[in-house]
Amino acid sequence: MPVAGDTPAAASAATCLDAVAWDERGLAPAIAQDAGSGRVLMLAWMNRDALAASIASGFATYWSRSRAQLWRKGESSGHRQRIVDMRLDCDGDTLLLQVEQMGGIACHTGRASCFYRALDAAAGGDCWTVRDPVLKNPDDIYSHE
Amino acid sequence: MPVAGDTPAAASAATCLDAVAWDERGLAPAIAQDAGSGRVLMLAWMNRDALAASIASGFATYWSRSRAQLWRKGESSGHRQRIVDMRLDCDGDTLLLQVEQMGGIACHTGRASCFYRALDAAAGGDCWTVRDPVLKNPDDIYSHE
Repeated sequence: MPVAGDTPAAASAATCLDAVAWDERGLAPAIAQDAGSGRVLMLAWMNRDALAASIASGFATYWSRSRAQLWRKGESSGHRQRIVDMRLDCDGDTLLLQVEQMGGIACHTGRASCFYRALDAAAGGDCWTVRDPVLKNPDDIYSHE
Repeated sequence: MPVAGDTPAAASAATCLDAVAWDERGLAPAIAQDAGSGRVLMLAWMNRDALAASIASGFATYWSRSRAQLWRKGESSGHRQRIVDMRLDCDGDTLLLQVEQMGGIACHTGRASCFYRALDAAAGGDCWTVRDPVLKNPDDIYSHE
């Protein structure tokens, strides 16, 4: 029930957040898929605040487990992800975002997708083989200062 | 280095498994994507044994966290997933499988994909709205005995 200060939109957003089966850390994996190409770009994590920020802003915001803080994807690189559609899976513990990937680069290595290594078990040795090109030098992505 | 009893193929497979940054539970999320439609079907988890079985068999095998055992996807439903391509992400902790989905149904609810609920925050109330039809009654999927 809305309390003083709550707007109907805020109450609705809380309902959306409550529907997610957050894990014991309060997190859920979120898959980002390119809405145009269908390519899976990355997997990151959201907590309640990250999902709320994603819904409110329309741009993907994750929870950085390594930095233990909200991660507004693209904040430093410019490679933001505009959310076109968001899905929840059958058991409610995984999110799927269809995104418009700014700059066409989702990965910090400068590649379109973070999934740029393919299994080539028959080859022996290095069985995860790099298949996708670097589109932009990471030094150029993150050297804005 | 191979030891007595190891085959080159086994040694190679071990290298592939070692390259994965398994989490503190020994797991990594694995995304299954339909190789034809590009649709993201589900997210499940793998441990070393599940990945080894997937590579060896060519069919997706996961680790069921709820049952704490290997889960040969489709073993009871027939909805197996033939692996067409497998990818590892930049930090090595997430797998992406391109699969041929037998029966065109990945979800235990009888739907093509587990991601059948879409966010419709503007609608209020139930903000995750079912968008995809049930293709087959789950009772008919799992009542083989």
